[in-house]
Amino acid sequence: MSACPPPERPATPKPGRVSLVGAGPGDPDLLTVRALRALQSADVILYDALIDPAILDLARPDARRVDVGKRCDRHAMNQAAINHLLVTHARSGRHVVRLKGGDPFVFGRGGEELDCLRAAGVPVEIIPGVTAACAAAASLGIPLTHRDIARSLHFVTGHGSDGTMPEQDWTALAHGGGTIAAYMASRTIATVAARLIAAGQPASTPAVAVENASRANERHLHGTLADLPAALAAQGFDGPVVVLIGQVVGLAQTMPIAERHAA
Amino acid sequence: MSACPPPERPATPKPGRVSLVGAGPGDPDLLTVRALRALQSADVILYDALIDPAILDLARPDARRVDVGKRCDRHAMNQAAINHLLVTHARSGRHVVRLKGGDPFVFGRGGEELDCLRAAGVPVEIIPGVTAACAAAASLGIPLTHRDIARSLHFVTGHGSDGTMPEQDWTALAHGGGTIAAYMASRTIATVAARLIAAGQPASTPAVAVENASRANERHLHGTLADLPAALAAQGFDGPVVVLIGQVVGLAQTMPIAERHAA
Repeated sequence: MSACPPPERPATPKPGRVSLVGAGPGDPDLLTVRALRALQSADVILYDALIDPAILDLARPDARRVDVGKRCDRHAMNQAAINHLLVTHARSGRHVVRLKGGDPFVFGRGGEELDCLRAAGVPVEIIPGVTAACAAAASLGIPLTHRDIARSLHFVTGHGSDGTMPEQDWTALAHGGGTIAAYMASRTIATVAARLIAAGQPASTPAVAVENASRANERHLHGTLADLPAALAAQGFDGPVVVLIGQVVGLAQTMPIAERHAA
Repeated sequence: MSACPPPERPATPKPGRVSLVGAGPGDPDLLTVRALRALQSADVILYDALIDPAILDLARPDARRVDVGKRCDRHAMNQAAINHLLVTHARSGRHVVRLKGGDPFVFGRGGEELDCLRAAGVPVEIIPGVTAACAAAASLGIPLTHRDIARSLHFVTGHGSDGTMPEQDWTALAHGGGTIAAYMASRTIATVAARLIAAGQPASTPAVAVENASRANERHLHGTLADLPAALAAQGFDGPVVVLIGQVVGLAQTMPIAERHAA
């Protein structure tokens, strides 16, 4: 009887904006409701290489998907180019989702993107996410803090603008007695472990490497601070790896969580 | 024509189980999809006092809701009683959700409940959540790590089995140079700040207290490590408070995020 009406167009174009979104550790079910909603609203999605394809599948079919991922050697796009894309798409009136693994403000360089967007006058919201250490701990049943064993929790990385933390940080950590989570650790764990041991952390401290935490292809490797790096290299973990270090890791070793996918 | 059929009953009752669920910081939209699904499946929900009522509203209308919350002086139920309830309900064949603010393994005593459930042979899954520091940082636009300013992140609390961390931890933190997030800080920030300053942290270090992070009634109070405790006491922040301490907090002070609810 009648042809389809033309799609509605708003009288005035809505201003563009950017959502800096933490996608969580990988399992699409560990997206927050708010992140899912932003993803479903986005006109353009700029995503990291480590984002699970199943997460991108939740976006609108017509959303533009841009891989801006950086994985160690393969720099798909430098930070300046990413910043430029964010501003350009937002200024064209689009809702841009910048999708980052884990939480955008924990080793995600979200701060640098926020700086740029604010300087450019682009409206921005930040949606926090489940960070890798929490996902790995949940999978293995390792309490990151425990009132009898570990009363603090420390996130570190071997990556940085110059590749390492200041020397004093390692000494402080080694004597702190809390749980340590080493992020982006697949290539740096040998350095992190050597520095902690040199700074006084017992070589026998329990440690576990978790690759692809929360995903179907999650893998674990238990050891000590002394022997885990070599074992990890031998196993060829090349996905995103977080290493948990501390006495709490020993709880998982004696009490493996066979039922963690009981649901 | 016909009456409604009786509800289907499984031939054999399904075994009970427990989900230790991180509810995130308070905003129901910051639940993960997996947490939401567990909540909607639960027969019984044991929840902390700080869980937002809007989150409980997402559960089945017929689910039993039990407030086991502990808030400083008012101990609604001790840990042994909570453990007993978890085991008893699960052994009756029910799906029990133990709903905890933030992430269950970051200062949530989830480890103690897991110990108990495993000892009792009850199947358990752990669902990680968005932790308060990440939510507060997202609200204020404070990158918790920043490659030029803070290359590590430290979660501490003034609460513990004996109320404090070991002395050496404070010294380590004060000299570490990373961002510090002090949890459950409304009553302990004065002690935490005094110990950090005594251990060498500059009294002028920027700090911000965030009450009810992510909720409609979120409040912030900016200051320095030296003056924030008194100001916080004067303001009467009595909801859940996380205090972020470090040079990154200065970024928020010069660049307030007016647009954080741009969506």
